Amino acid sequence: MVDNRNEIEVRKLEHIFLCNYCDVEYKKTTLLEDIELIHKGTCGINFYDIETETKLFGKKLSAPIIVSGITGGHSKAKEINKNIAKAVEELGLGMGVGSQRAAIINDDLIDTYSVVRDYTNNLVIGNLGAVNFIVDNWDEEVVDKAVEMIDADAMAIHFNPLQEVIQPEGDLNFKNLDKLKEIISNYKKSYKNIPFIAKQVGEGFSKEDALILKDIGFDAIDVQGSGGTSWAKVEIYRVKDEKIKNLLEKFANWGIPTAASIFEVKSVYDGIVIGSGGIRGGLDIAKCIAIGCDCCAVALPILKASLKGWEEVVKVLEEYIKELKIAMFLVGAENIEELKKTPYIVKGTLKDWINQRLK
Amino acid sequence: MVDNRNEIEVRKLEHIFLCNYCDVEYKKTTLLEDIELIHKGTCGINFYDIETETKLFGKKLSAPIIVSGITGGHSKAKEINKNIAKAVEELGLGMGVGSQRAAIINDDLIDTYSVVRDYTNNLVIGNLGAVNFIVDNWDEEVVDKAVEMIDADAMAIHFNPLQEVIQPEGDLNFKNLDKLKEIISNYKKSYKNIPFIAKQVGEGFSKEDALILKDIGFDAIDVQGSGGTSWAKVEIYRVKDEKIKNLLEKFANWGIPTAASIFEVKSVYDGIVIGSGGIRGGLDIAKCIAIGCDCCAVALPILKASLKGWEEVVKVLEEYIKELKIAMFLVGAENIEELKKTPYIVKGTLKDWINQRLK
Amino acid sequence: MVDNRNEIEVRKLEHIFLCNYCDVEYKKTTLLEDIELIHKGTCGINFYDIETETKLFGKKLSAPIIVSGITGGHSKAKEINKNIAKAVEELGLGMGVGSQRAAIINDDLIDTYSVVRDYTNNLVIGNLGAVNFIVDNWDEEVVDKAVEMIDADAMAIHFNPLQEVIQPEGDLNFKNLDKLKEIISNYKKSYKNIPFIAKQVGEGFSKEDALILKDIGFDAIDVQGSGGTSWAKVEIYRVKDEKIKNLLEKFANWGIPTAASIFEVKSVYDGIVIGSGGIRGGLDIAKCIAIGCDCCAVALPILKASLKGWEEVVKVLEEYIKELKIAMFLVGAENIEELKKTPYIVKGTLKDWINQRLK
Amino acid sequence: MVDNRNEIEVRKLEHIFLCNYCDVEYKKTTLLEDIELIHKGTCGINFYDIETETKLFGKKLSAPIIVSGITGGHSKAKEINKNIAKAVEELGLGMGVGSQRAAIINDDLIDTYSVVRDYTNNLVIGNLGAVNFIVDNWDEEVVDKAVEMIDADAMAIHFNPLQEVIQPEGDLNFKNLDKLKEIISNYKKSYKNIPFIAKQVGEGFSKEDALILKDIGFDAIDVQGSGGTSWAKVEIYRVKDEKIKNLLEKFANWGIPTAASIFEVKSVYDGIVIGSGGIRGGLDIAKCIAIGCDCCAVALPILKASLKGWEEVVKVLEEYIKELKIAMFLVGAENIEELKKTPYIVKGTLKDWINQRLK
Ligand SMILES: Cc1cc2nc3c(=O)[nH]c(=O)nc-3n(C[C@H](O)[C@H](O)[C@H](O)COP(=O)(O)O)c2cc1C
Ligand SMILES: Cc1cc2nc3c(=O)[nH]c(=O)nc-3n(C[C@H](O)[C@H](O)[C@H](O)COP(=O)(O)O)c2cc1C
Ligand SMILES: Cc1cc2nc3c(=O)[nH]c(=O)nc-3n(C[C@H](O)[C@H](O)[C@H](O)COP(=O)(O)O)c2cc1C
Ligand SMILES: Cc1cc2nc3c(=O)[nH]c(=O)nc-3n(C[C@H](O)[C@H](O)[C@H](O)COP(=O)(O)O)c2cc1C
Repeated sequence: MVDNRNEIEVRKLEHIFLCNYCDVEYKKTTLLEDIELIHKGTCGINFYDIETETKLFGKKLSAPIIVSGITGGHSKAKEINKNIAKAVEELGLGMGVGSQRAAIINDDLIDTYSVVRDYTNNLVIGNLGAVNFIVDNWDEEVVDKAVEMIDADAMAIHFNPLQEVIQPEGDLNFKNLDKLKEIISNYKKSYKNIPFIAKQVGEGFSKEDALILKDIGFDAIDVQGSGGTSWAKVEIYRVKDEKIKNLLEKFANWGIPTAASIFEVKSVYDGIVIGSGGIRGGLDIAKCIAIGCDCCAVALPILKASLKGWEEVVKVLEEYIKELKIAMFLVGAENIEELKKTPYIVKGTLKDWINQRLK
Repeated sequence: MVDNRNEIEVRKLEHIFLCNYCDVEYKKTTLLEDIELIHKGTCGINFYDIETETKLFGKKLSAPIIVSGITGGHSKAKEINKNIAKAVEELGLGMGVGSQRAAIINDDLIDTYSVVRDYTNNLVIGNLGAVNFIVDNWDEEVVDKAVEMIDADAMAIHFNPLQEVIQPEGDLNFKNLDKLKEIISNYKKSYKNIPFIAKQVGEGFSKEDALILKDIGFDAIDVQGSGGTSWAKVEIYRVKDEKIKNLLEKFANWGIPTAASIFEVKSVYDGIVIGSGGIRGGLDIAKCIAIGCDCCAVALPILKASLKGWEEVVKVLEEYIKELKIAMFLVGAENIEELKKTPYIVKGTLKDWINQRLK
Repeated sequence: MVDNRNEIEVRKLEHIFLCNYCDVEYKKTTLLEDIELIHKGTCGINFYDIETETKLFGKKLSAPIIVSGITGGHSKAKEINKNIAKAVEELGLGMGVGSQRAAIINDDLIDTYSVVRDYTNNLVIGNLGAVNFIVDNWDEEVVDKAVEMIDADAMAIHFNPLQEVIQPEGDLNFKNLDKLKEIISNYKKSYKNIPFIAKQVGEGFSKEDALILKDIGFDAIDVQGSGGTSWAKVEIYRVKDEKIKNLLEKFANWGIPTAASIFEVKSVYDGIVIGSGGIRGGLDIAKCIAIGCDCCAVALPILKASLKGWEEVVKVLEEYIKELKIAMFLVGAENIEELKKTPYIVKGTLKDWINQRLK
Repeated sequence: MVDNRNEIEVRKLEHIFLCNYCDVEYKKTTLLEDIELIHKGTCGINFYDIETETKLFGKKLSAPIIVSGITGGHSKAKEINKNIAKAVEELGLGMGVGSQRAAIINDDLIDTYSVVRDYTNNLVIGNLGAVNFIVDNWDEEVVDKAVEMIDADAMAIHFNPLQEVIQPEGDLNFKNLDKLKEIISNYKKSYKNIPFIAKQVGEGFSKEDALILKDIGFDAIDVQGSGGTSWAKVEIYRVKDEKIKNLLEKFANWGIPTAASIFEVKSVYDGIVIGSGGIRGGLDIAKCIAIGCDCCAVALPILKASLKGWEEVVKVLEEYIKELKIAMFLVGAENIEELKKTPYIVKGTLKDWINQRLK
């Protein structure tokens, strides 16, 4: 058991260092570049009046940005979570923690997650894997443990079939996911009435997914589409067998590009939508908001910054907010509500995608 | 006559070695890359429940994959056929033999084909050239000889006008092909009621072709479209005269891309359709099934593997099946029937093709 | 104050030299290349009959070309303005001066603008910044001072939100621009009834802008779209902080391409439209006229020529006129009115743009 | 006068050698690559039954190919014309001579054109410039002289505004071209009732042109569109002044691509249409015929061959015919009439062109 725990810790560290040092991003893009916000030459607003504030899950955010759930379960993870928590506290933003499974199994690891509450009272989102509700027979008590561990304001349930299927150790049973319907409903009734978020990990959700997630009763969808971190690429580095490397290459471009996923989900779902997967600056965020997202989420650039210290996380997020504000200025949007109404055009592949799937 | 036989053997060997060592594939693609299967983020199935089994021509296949007809008629061919037969027996797949003309003419060569029956009871498909029914005045007796030679479960009749026209020795009379109507019908009545497959060799069939083939009475169409092995490219290596090389270059991109050919055929034909020509992995197979094929066929990669040994053929086909299963998992299809209904989008040139030809 | 003036002068010189020596142009294009004028093989006209003459703001121009407002306010600027004035006088064209703010504040600098009237009686256009009417509370008296300074035939009011927002010293309040409605109307009533032009500086106007500008009462719109000089690129050279450089890179491609901006504006506005931003020859001019512009304007190439002497400015403009005439010959247009009716096709991204925004 | 004649001869030789040794072809293509003939996998014909024979202007051609008018007027031209004449006689094809103006002015040069009749009785087409009917006040007597000189079976009148406008010595008056109406009609009545062909020289005709040419009474249109020899490129080599080189570069891509020009002309004109400009093989010819041409014409490759000898011209044309026959075989067309009905798809830029201009 100790050995096994050691192994998992080593794998998690390997993932973190791979993401930090190697190119782990999709060759195919988010398709956000196929969206062009329309410059408003007359502008018509005062830059100093621009308000980026918004609300998410009942908590205030100084800008529509949260840090995606990344890690937990080992000492390096504790440091990363601490750095992110300090930064979002400083800036008035929100964050998620990584999969809490490690601490569900082993109480000794709880502090690697709960550390965030030593540093922030802002929005904090818990994280559990959908697959474990099936394969490990989890129920509302597990949810309760995860929520209490970090006093979570919301719970993200991640769906990661690609990630599981390409790892030798992967859990591969995603059947009977509607079990989640009862678990969520029971949890809300018997424990706390907090919102639940369905979250991908880089391959996005389709409109068919959105209908299923709506039916299960998810309050929000965090699309986490393709174009940012690719788990197939991460794994390619770790695999030694050439044949398996080759197989992973085939799926290194698999997934619904972030912009397409946002349109897919918005076409059938009217809950909260978070734009994520490959968000790399305030212009990306402005585009996501313009096409209907309530907020954006970022992982990889924040992970990299967090390894340098919490001030670096602050700097990166400040850049994003500054860039977002400039974009808002140039389309003449004084606040997030106005940004949601700004005109844009859709080009190339994204246009094709929308025409074929959503019309 | 002996000399002539030697010559043909040498040419066949030259083809095989050229295909093994040189780039003999189209620069233009199958257009399968213009199809994007839609990731199902919620997945909803258990990987271990996935069934790739299917039936083709009354025989079970463990996955919708057969090996295309490649060779026969000389000792190296015998070894290749043996290796393929052992592999498909091991995996529960099917195979075709190469053109049986050599053994129709010369009984001494029969064992280079019939060897497959020493190693497999699975689906085996015979192979004769449409053009020979015209130029050599073949009839149902020839069909009978070919079927009996390998105890064929089905007969493929290949149509190869490009191949013939670019070879100095080519047979160039494809007139009065409807003669095949009577021959097939007579054969079925007087001999065995097995299915007949119309097969291209890398240039694909159009919808106009499909109507003709339907009228002749073919039970299946094996599209063998452009994007994989190009016979014009094979011949370019063999030709010495610069002017003829130049002429062949003009036709090195001739043909209907595999994905387009599948849509062409499906638009007017409701028999069995095999997706083939440039199939290079399980993701290609998943796409073919999603757009309506019943099965896929592969030649070049299997030929290469068979030159290394039967275990190598097994390995390549296992990779294909594994890749197919992952694709099925990621679109949430538990079996081939569900895969046939999975949503997809069509982009770029393939979209143009469909719009202009099939709407 | 002297120091501050010195600083501004140094910055203006730095801009000029940067524009002269470095690549300051958009990577993204004007989209004029997506317009193809249709060759008239029968031609049907006499080259020597071709008339490029046109009228703009009541003044004759020998061709539909003016020099955009570029500079003023320091000794080098005086020389540049003089050289441009001599050249447009020689050729019968018009010109604008750069922002007159410097001389509004400081009378000593007036001659760096008024010098143009020592050399030309042709069309001269004044230049003031829209933002200053807000932040500096300017009114019709300021307009009067600017007009009188150069005996302006028309006044351009430039809108430059991007430029302001990326400069540390930028004015960032574009709110209540409808104040301009009264100022313009008052000025026309109480002072001179000259036309007012709304002018961008390289990011273009949208159709939404055009409606606002129409409502304010602008007689003309000078689109100055993207594809030529990029102020974000100019500033990237000047900035030292890597993070800010990175931020500016994000906006180095921001803006409405010139051809798109022309279509946007023409779709809702029937005043005079000037095609500008990245105009680099007579073929560009012919295309702008064909899609509905009354005239074109050029900055960067003229700035570069003016640093070599007035004869060089003449040479560059003569080339443009010659190229325009050849284009007119090849589409069989004897004069500007006929050129406006010449057929063309629209391709690629520009076609997409029009389809989505203007249909 | 002698000097002047010498000068013209030198220029003509310079053109010929430039075309032989340098890259004088358009960067932009004929757009014939946007046409894809549909492979007929079942073929259905006998290669040896394929007939490429056709009739043009009352004369038989063994294939729908003629050599475009290229040269005349000096001793090298005589040799070129002789070599082409011998080759077309050998193969049963037709040819044009280059502009006969030189011999209209100077009887000594007649034999450099009339030499063709010493070697062929096949279709020979005369060549005069449309512009000279205006600037030199030519009439039906000039036509008569040109026809008699070579016993022409048809007369081509070339329209070359681009060529004229970029040459220092160019004739630039294409006004009152309807004068040609009377001249042609008078000539036909008073002299010989032979067909008249309107011919471009590499920039193509539009549908507007076709209507004008129809009205003038032309019996045929030889499109000579863009994608082959570019006169702007030829002239760029000859010019020394950098500014003029630069100007010519702007027009090096000017013109209607051959495939687009064919569709333009066919949309309004039902006379004979010749596909030409950048025809570089039998596959190009097959495409032209499929989209509605009666015949094709080729210049540059034949010019190059003719400089090596008449046998080389034969070889090049034989290659074209062979390639055409293979294409006919692969679409299952037994003769030119069937080829005219073969299905095809139109892609990319050509599709855009047709959609915008001809729908
Ligand atoms: C090192 C690393 C670890 C991650 N661990 C988790 C996790 O435990 N739970 C989860 O839901 N997502 C996890 N993710 C996925 C991210 O939340 C996010 O969906 C993905 O990285 C795409 O966003 P990006 O392109 O901004 O990186 C992880 C990502 C990284 C880079
Ligand atoms: C060496 C070689 C020999 C072939 N011989 C035959 C044959 O005898 N009969 C036939 O129908 N197809 C023959 N084919 C064509 C294949 O069956 C198949 O149609 C073609 O190779 C395209 O598939 P691929 O891209 O997977 O190679 C041959 C292919 C190869 C590479
Ligand atoms: C050095 C320089 C200074 C400029 N100054 C002004 C100015 O003071 N006022 C203004 O309205 N535009 C100014 N512009 C913008 C130009 O008028 C024009 O809008 C822009 O350069 C795009 O045109 P181009 O691509 O032809 O250069 C300036 C441009 C340059 C290159
Ligand atoms: C050297 C040369 C001379 C030519 N001279 C004439 C001419 O005198 N009259 C004419 O109508 N076209 C002339 N042409 C144009 C050709 O007839 C043809 O329109 C053009 O070259 C495009 O065809 P291509 O791409 O096959 O070369 C000439 C072309 C070349 C290359």
